[in-house]
Amino acid sequence: MQQIQQLQNSINQYISNKKYGTTPVELYEPIYYIMALGGKRLRPCLLLMACDMFGGDVQQALAPALAIEVFHNFTLMHDDIMDKAPLRRGKPTVHEKWNANVAILSGDVMMVEANKLIMQVDDRILRPVLDVFNDTAVGVCEGQQIDMNFETLTHVTIDEYINMIRLKTAVLVAGALKMGALVGGADDAEASLLYSFGEQLGIAFQLQDDILDVYGDPKKFGKQVGGDIISNKKTYLLIKAMELAKGETLTELNYWISATEFNGIEKVTAVKNIYNQLNIREHAEAEMNRYAEQAILNFEKINLPNERKVILKEFADMLLVRDY
Amino acid sequence: MQQIQQLQNSINQYISNKKYGTTPVELYEPIYYIMALGGKRLRPCLLLMACDMFGGDVQQALAPALAIEVFHNFTLMHDDIMDKAPLRRGKPTVHEKWNANVAILSGDVMMVEANKLIMQVDDRILRPVLDVFNDTAVGVCEGQQIDMNFETLTHVTIDEYINMIRLKTAVLVAGALKMGALVGGADDAEASLLYSFGEQLGIAFQLQDDILDVYGDPKKFGKQVGGDIISNKKTYLLIKAMELAKGETLTELNYWISATEFNGIEKVTAVKNIYNQLNIREHAEAEMNRYAEQAILNFEKINLPNERKVILKEFADMLLVRDY
Repeated sequence: MQQIQQLQNSINQYISNKKYGTTPVELYEPIYYIMALGGKRLRPCLLLMACDMFGGDVQQALAPALAIEVFHNFTLMHDDIMDKAPLRRGKPTVHEKWNANVAILSGDVMMVEANKLIMQVDDRILRPVLDVFNDTAVGVCEGQQIDMNFETLTHVTIDEYINMIRLKTAVLVAGALKMGALVGGADDAEASLLYSFGEQLGIAFQLQDDILDVYGDPKKFGKQVGGDIISNKKTYLLIKAMELAKGETLTELNYWISATEFNGIEKVTAVKNIYNQLNIREHAEAEMNRYAEQAILNFEKINLPNERKVILKEFADMLLVRDY
Repeated sequence: MQQIQQLQNSINQYISNKKYGTTPVELYEPIYYIMALGGKRLRPCLLLMACDMFGGDVQQALAPALAIEVFHNFTLMHDDIMDKAPLRRGKPTVHEKWNANVAILSGDVMMVEANKLIMQVDDRILRPVLDVFNDTAVGVCEGQQIDMNFETLTHVTIDEYINMIRLKTAVLVAGALKMGALVGGADDAEASLLYSFGEQLGIAFQLQDDILDVYGDPKKFGKQVGGDIISNKKTYLLIKAMELAKGETLTELNYWISATEFNGIEKVTAVKNIYNQLNIREHAEAEMNRYAEQAILNFEKINLPNERKVILKEFADMLLVRDY
């Protein structure tokens, strides 16, 4: 069995060595560019870990692992156009550095490259792996559209929100784990348990991200603390606060949400104050823990010796105990 | 064996009955919308004919045939954003009717739907069919990017142009035929002959389209005659004219190309006049016929009785003898 760091090194090396097409350059340079921006390589690592856990050959899983990372970056390239995002990991987004047309078409060809990579599995699992891949891809697109729709809705329920993050974030984590399990030789029942584990872990992970946006340590979080509050992003925290706030508290919350001109720090402080009054952090942590516990229950059902499961379990724990 | 009309009816019925996802509606309505805009269903028909020609079951080929049509319409949806096209077959384009974000994301999910459809083939040909599909998809993206690059170049050679239309138009025709052949039971050598036939037929077809833009009968052509001339589109005709024009003729051609304000009819008449002086139509027809003949040579090498080949042959002849 391989340690997390080894797996991360393997995938990073595989990413650096990977060659895509060459001409026309406008189509391929953005792929090299976005793939070199880095990131935690979380999804491909999960795929490799799942393969390794079932005793599979990690070398055989590198191409499908890269497929997941290429697919993920394709969605980022297109999402950045849709969100008009100027920066991605501190660097200009593809549509800013080149233009929107290049980002659309480069993204399209990345999707095809991801399909080519995911096919690099044994014939016996080609169809099941592709089925997971396609279902995952549909889910991610649905999640992105629902997320965009939320921007124009005044009212979103917690259930709707959880479903959105399940689609937009969790199914890709789940799909990566399931595909890794299949490559590693797991049967469908075991692979499906790992899928459920990943789905719930992914939801817990996104809820934690929502919490960190407000309560994270600015030095460790790496993003602007309070960014979600400033942009009125409908996170678990805001939706729950809208649900619980009454009277003056509700009036004040609505005031900040509808304010068009405001001081950012003042807004973050005020809204955070409301969250504190309503115990929003505790609600969010309870919800997150509920999903994390469900995830672990599914993981425990997988019929493998504990020593095989320890690394993925540790990784999941690490994901969910990011410093606040 | 089935007649062309029968095959067209089958694919049209299959398209009307096909269900995609339902929610979020912004993701799926545009798919139904663009798929209902109609069109000649050329590519899926070619796939069905190829399958039928090798004695395959056309019913088994309907899903892959639809995959090609869904893929083609996905590229149209994204191309229309990039080209800022307001209309597609006389109706508002998806990015006009909804918005660019919807057209990007709906297109993305169409690509996944196409992948799901193309997988509906026997396990024994799943990998070869997917290989053709992915290579085709990469080619189409490359062709679109090269075509966009041409807009900003002052000089394009005939070879570069032929390579662009090969990628943008011909490989999809070729890929459809090859996939149909594989579904129909053809071996790789026969399927590859049909691929070459389709590639050359596709180039001939696009050259004919260039000719029709200038010399077509406005009543029969269905598009604005001279549209390519008005927009300075680098077609075979313009590239050849730039290559052959000398002295005053070249000066006049350059005048019309660089004119920013002009009367459309006057420009079309003047440039057509230059084309006539330089025998551009004859050059273009000779080039088109060269590709058509190469296509037929490859077709004749396919080892099947003539009675099996007659329908596809007739269809190819029909494609290349559109009324002028």
